[in-house]
Amino acid sequence: MEIEGKLAQLKTKLNEIEDLKYAISVLSWDQQTQMPPGGANGRGHQVSTLARLAHTKFVSPEIGQLLQDLKPYAAESEPDSDDACLIKVASREYEKLSRVPSDLVAEFARITTESYGVWEEARNEANFSKFQPYLTRIVELRRQYADCHPYDHIYDPLLEDYEPGLKTTDVKEIFEALRPKQVELIQAIGARPQVDDSFLYKSYDETKQLEFSVNVITQFGYDWKRGRLDKSAHPFTTRLGQSDVRITTRVYPDNFASAFFGTTHECGHALYEMGVDPSLDRTTLGEGASYAMHESQSRLYENLIGRSRDFWIHFYPRLQEIFPAQLGNVELDQFYKGINRVQPSFVRVEADEATYNLHIMLRLELEIALMEGSLEVADLPEAWNARMQDYLGVIPPDDRQGVLQDVHWSSGYFGYFSTYALGNLIASQIWESLKSEIPDLATQIRGGQFSALREWLRQKIHCHGKKFEPQDLVERVTGSKIDPAPYMRYLQEKYREIYKL
Amino acid sequence: MEIEGKLAQLKTKLNEIEDLKYAISVLSWDQQTQMPPGGANGRGHQVSTLARLAHTKFVSPEIGQLLQDLKPYAAESEPDSDDACLIKVASREYEKLSRVPSDLVAEFARITTESYGVWEEARNEANFSKFQPYLTRIVELRRQYADCHPYDHIYDPLLEDYEPGLKTTDVKEIFEALRPKQVELIQAIGARPQVDDSFLYKSYDETKQLEFSVNVITQFGYDWKRGRLDKSAHPFTTRLGQSDVRITTRVYPDNFASAFFGTTHECGHALYEMGVDPSLDRTTLGEGASYAMHESQSRLYENLIGRSRDFWIHFYPRLQEIFPAQLGNVELDQFYKGINRVQPSFVRVEADEATYNLHIMLRLELEIALMEGSLEVADLPEAWNARMQDYLGVIPPDDRQGVLQDVHWSSGYFGYFSTYALGNLIASQIWESLKSEIPDLATQIRGGQFSALREWLRQKIHCHGKKFEPQDLVERVTGSKIDPAPYMRYLQEKYREIYKL
Repeated sequence: MEIEGKLAQLKTKLNEIEDLKYAISVLSWDQQTQMPPGGANGRGHQVSTLARLAHTKFVSPEIGQLLQDLKPYAAESEPDSDDACLIKVASREYEKLSRVPSDLVAEFARITTESYGVWEEARNEANFSKFQPYLTRIVELRRQYADCHPYDHIYDPLLEDYEPGLKTTDVKEIFEALRPKQVELIQAIGARPQVDDSFLYKSYDETKQLEFSVNVITQFGYDWKRGRLDKSAHPFTTRLGQSDVRITTRVYPDNFASAFFGTTHECGHALYEMGVDPSLDRTTLGEGASYAMHESQSRLYENLIGRSRDFWIHFYPRLQEIFPAQLGNVELDQFYKGINRVQPSFVRVEADEATYNLHIMLRLELEIALMEGSLEVADLPEAWNARMQDYLGVIPPDDRQGVLQDVHWSSGYFGYFSTYALGNLIASQIWESLKSEIPDLATQIRGGQFSALREWLRQKIHCHGKKFEPQDLVERVTGSKIDPAPYMRYLQEKYREIYKL
Repeated sequence: MEIEGKLAQLKTKLNEIEDLKYAISVLSWDQQTQMPPGGANGRGHQVSTLARLAHTKFVSPEIGQLLQDLKPYAAESEPDSDDACLIKVASREYEKLSRVPSDLVAEFARITTESYGVWEEARNEANFSKFQPYLTRIVELRRQYADCHPYDHIYDPLLEDYEPGLKTTDVKEIFEALRPKQVELIQAIGARPQVDDSFLYKSYDETKQLEFSVNVITQFGYDWKRGRLDKSAHPFTTRLGQSDVRITTRVYPDNFASAFFGTTHECGHALYEMGVDPSLDRTTLGEGASYAMHESQSRLYENLIGRSRDFWIHFYPRLQEIFPAQLGNVELDQFYKGINRVQPSFVRVEADEATYNLHIMLRLELEIALMEGSLEVADLPEAWNARMQDYLGVIPPDDRQGVLQDVHWSSGYFGYFSTYALGNLIASQIWESLKSEIPDLATQIRGGQFSALREWLRQKIHCHGKKFEPQDLVERVTGSKIDPAPYMRYLQEKYREIYKL
């Protein structure tokens, strides 16, 4: 009885903290999609106050004591049970967040909220100097945050916020194994005749683009009673509650790929959050397991499905009907090759699957250098461009398409980028498991059937929320930890055919 | 020094509470304009948690002690100074809110947040029984709230939340003086030939309606960098910070008046909030003085300006240009009479100025009866319709146009409605002062010039925020407390001319 009482107390306290975090997410969604520019300063204060409260409440002695008292109960419970996992994960986060002063949390929330609008303006004007003082302060605060914790490498505590259990050396190791293979593949492709994708850059009516994307993600299973789609400078997905999971996209009138693949990407994230078991809502476990696990879902829908031939066998005739002038004379095969064209480019989110991870590796190195202090924020644009030249052989014409392209740093998301590349790897691992467990998956996709796929992902991954550590979850689902081999197999097989390597 | 330190401490604590209240307002705005239906339950928890926190923090012993310690300082300060007013107003609210348990505040916030969606559905379906259990619970909670306080009448503590200093007997007295005169006026009008307003109910393109309204409120001075306009089931204005004051409206394709007068009404509210001195933001004083003061501003822009001949001398040719088929053959004089047609009707927000206050009196009586317990929620639709027959001689065809028409009760706003009628009275008082202090006001309005008017209101009323009690503020601006005489003079003069009484 006493244990039950304590568990109920713990959950009530966690509910309150999750409500505060949901409120922060509403404020942030509003800021990125609705808020008038005048609101930025006030919004900074509001988010800062809520973040401070959520932090203070979480690291309170009462929660510490409850977690302590419940540890024996967790130890003797079934390890996979919701309660055991909740106590374990909440204890891990408690241990970590207790080391951080609430003042630092509040100041970080304020500056990153205010800096969003500054980044947006700086990006629109391709004017890094406008963003520089904010980024300098953010880097400073992230270093202070890292220094609250014991670490082998100063980047570890940041990375761990996104990928519990993963170290900087682990990521470096994975990336170092991957990079030469990706570079080799890109070089082999570069030696072959290029495929044409000019038809993707014709004039595409924005409303029709959105309608088509909406139709596709509806068939993927996005539940409109529990979500909505808006436009924002940078696409994102946000969970504002178990039954309010929103996505955003951006639409360009002269680029079909951007809105479509962006929307399917965010849909992958949203299906994850919509599939979390409702009983975990308003607790520490009520969200996806990690950012890499999340990216595995978004990249799976965006690429493994959205850029597959099977998918377009079903949808391409529909797309041609909507855009006859643009695509009427483009054969399915041409279209398929076009959306998979490999071409070193400036913008990560528009990058093809072969070059994508190089964009990530560049960011990882820059983030590590900023955290180590070996790179100054003032020197960032130059360092960015130098690495672009080095890794991809191209230099962005301005900072809008260079160092300012991503929203992440304005939000202080240092440690996030690696998870995109890791997500690519995990997506391919999951894809292999999926194909072996749903033997007619390809046939289903060719028929526009996505429910068995979604259900499989829901049962194997989504429903568990944050119960399991990401590496553990990957192993449960695929039989091995994060492994680059399936990804390389996937890329090689795909591009061998497209580029006749 | 010690006093300065305590004052700074108090302000820091109040800042935090105001941030929480702003966050609640963002969540509520989102719910009414953006949220998918699935979000209702989670939103109820979120708002409940924030409301509990804001309440607990405000009634904390620390704030109580600070207010106590600062009382002597307030007493010896200039009584109109920001600090003296802050200490006085915060003490008054502290004294009141300390009597209320946080559990009651949280439960009230949860149920009123959840009930919004239920009301919206019930209203759309004209199905009162769907809303009834929620309203029953809300009435129960409002009675509990009232019972936390000492009172002469159970309705007093509710009314006082909207109109500090005003008692139920005061309002009854004002209304009793007013009612026979309004009824007499309506009867006199009823004996005259009716004016035509059928042209207002032609087909009006929704986008063009909105564009015209946007153009007008831009000229009134609504600052789009600090606000935005959205659609909602019931129009409202919300302050999400000093520089984020949003309005909503609703647009009907077959009713020009609804969106236009609704939007100008909300613009009046917004100009008030946008005009509050920025130094008062994030304190107890950072909002309008009271709901009646607020309504005086919204009704002033909606009616005293928006339904005046002077206003349309400037804008009517522009409106005719936009809607030539609907209004090309309608003379200015006809149009002016049409938008001022007196006709007992079902819906308060669409009511003319002569009958409007009767809608309010009906609500006041029903609210008082519900609070006294002499009326059951189950009997409300019948009581509503009986009074409609009695006061206005019409019975709504369904509850959508009857008891379900207003959002207020779903939000638990018992005590709010009277402020609309009081606002009408104050607006006329202010109007008389305005005309004597800006002698060429009519000429300015005929020329589409609104800046002197806005500046006068800002300096006399808006900038003070909540510093002064509403009756005191009315007296400062107009030389007397709330007084029905100017309103009756205004109505009689206006309708004498229109209906040739």
